[in-house]
Amino acid sequence: MNILLTSVGRRVSLVKFFKEALEGDGYVYSADCDPTAPALYVSDKSFLVPRVNDKDYIPFIIEKCRKENIKLVVPLIDPELPILARERDTFLKEGIIPLVSTYEKVMIGYDKLLTYKYLIENSLPTPKTIYYKDDNDINLNMINFPIIIKPRYGSASIGVQKCEDVQDVEFYARKISEPILQEFLHGDEITIDILCDFEGNPISIVQRKRIKVRGGEVERGITIKDNSLFSLTLKLIMKLKPIGVINIQCFHTLYGFYFTEINPRFGGGYPLTYYAGVNFPKIIIKLIRQEKIEPLLGNYKEGLLMLRYDEGIYISEDNLLR
Amino acid sequence: MNILLTSVGRRVSLVKFFKEALEGDGYVYSADCDPTAPALYVSDKSFLVPRVNDKDYIPFIIEKCRKENIKLVVPLIDPELPILARERDTFLKEGIIPLVSTYEKVMIGYDKLLTYKYLIENSLPTPKTIYYKDDNDINLNMINFPIIIKPRYGSASIGVQKCEDVQDVEFYARKISEPILQEFLHGDEITIDILCDFEGNPISIVQRKRIKVRGGEVERGITIKDNSLFSLTLKLIMKLKPIGVINIQCFHTLYGFYFTEINPRFGGGYPLTYYAGVNFPKIIIKLIRQEKIEPLLGNYKEGLLMLRYDEGIYISEDNLLR
Repeated sequence: MNILLTSVGRRVSLVKFFKEALEGDGYVYSADCDPTAPALYVSDKSFLVPRVNDKDYIPFIIEKCRKENIKLVVPLIDPELPILARERDTFLKEGIIPLVSTYEKVMIGYDKLLTYKYLIENSLPTPKTIYYKDDNDINLNMINFPIIIKPRYGSASIGVQKCEDVQDVEFYARKISEPILQEFLHGDEITIDILCDFEGNPISIVQRKRIKVRGGEVERGITIKDNSLFSLTLKLIMKLKPIGVINIQCFHTLYGFYFTEINPRFGGGYPLTYYAGVNFPKIIIKLIRQEKIEPLLGNYKEGLLMLRYDEGIYISEDNLLR
Repeated sequence: MNILLTSVGRRVSLVKFFKEALEGDGYVYSADCDPTAPALYVSDKSFLVPRVNDKDYIPFIIEKCRKENIKLVVPLIDPELPILARERDTFLKEGIIPLVSTYEKVMIGYDKLLTYKYLIENSLPTPKTIYYKDDNDINLNMINFPIIIKPRYGSASIGVQKCEDVQDVEFYARKISEPILQEFLHGDEITIDILCDFEGNPISIVQRKRIKVRGGEVERGITIKDNSLFSLTLKLIMKLKPIGVINIQCFHTLYGFYFTEINPRFGGGYPLTYYAGVNFPKIIIKLIRQEKIEPLLGNYKEGLLMLRYDEGIYISEDNLLR
């Protein structure tokens, strides 16, 4: 079985995990629109693609899957999820499994106002959130500072700012597209790596705490186990029923846990979960082969640290993909 | 000969290069104040130290060097340079070589107003720079926007902001300690890795262009060779005469090159220079052993790309350094 990872970027470890999980039975393909994406150069085969928002993107990917006999497509960045999700049926009709939830479920994560609404409606804890528009008469003087301002459709912490006062809000609101205001939470940031089967039933839930962040992504983290967070996560998952991999962010405050983000894709820090003993690529391949999956909930190494550093691929520019 | 790398952080590759360069004749020690610094766990021996601005820092380091027979200390972050430089003689009296320039030279790089003054006085191109204080009557309306605002004593692009108008300047000036305003340059960012002998004579000059930056550090880069930049760099170096390793940043604009930063330490992107064929650790060890050094100026592979990704050390929290 051949597998394609799209928008592969710097996900070198993930490519290696998929190669290893295939055990020689098929190739791992990588795609990116940028020929300098390092993960392109550790895959079995790689190719350049149009940008994800280009109208040719989906036809290009499907044509490649047909030609190369690719059976599974794993998208790795947020902006790609709604695009792939909308075309789920097109892929399925071709006998290709896109590892993505349905469009409605993807949008619950992608649109941060919908995330808030969804969590509130399902009685799950989340920070107070409002849509900030010049014309909707928000009285900023009624806000308890500090607060967070961020773009409604954002990813990787781009454009996220802490505001200390009304002046800050007014300043950043001019720079951010469709800004939302969110209660500032004091506490640890926890990421949860979740794997569900294709019917949305949870197979694995792994909690890891962020110790240090760089460019919006975890640089140092540690696996933890908290029972009440486990219950809350299970409640969310049983309700949402996502397909395949999903990554959830939350804060652990004095008043308990608060969910902040739902990203229905591999989290950038997944390698920590892998080394803690939960091999998502292997389970995904088993799911496709309709093999029996052992339940793994809570079954991982606690207190494992991930300490990240930069490694590199060094190649001559003549050898870049064209 | 034993070698100590201080504030070692994520410099895993550099530790490996030094280990390899020693060829088994001595150990590479690493120090950091943070037990989760990954490079601590790839060195031959490692220890935790007080913070660099703690009064016990220098005595602690010297005591360790004595006890472990360490002959070379290589500082790796900017805030450490003035502290180590001020104690150069103390180290030298103990028979320990600190790989750092004199205090005056270090401050030329550390204080961005001094950098500007130094470059101007030596007829070297640099962007117009002014010190921004409420009380020094700057007429912001006389500025051509955009401009850059940054802290006078900054490092790793922390606090650097682009300002589009007077409002932006006034806003960020309140958030930045001792802000300076700098002409915004359009063009490629080029980093130059330089190695000098202990008398300040240049041994190697390698140019690399930044293709992509993450958290103030190069994520993707390529080696280049430009003769006019080579001449300008040589002029700067022959005047400054730094000791050991120095890293210089510049912009390549339509109007030529402009120097922006002088960092008298290993640049974070040095591994690209290493793979382009210039082994600084090996040359440094030869310099200490008073072996003959072959001239290497301009002698490196052009068009070599560095494509960085995250790699990790995975350890149980019980195994953290204490």
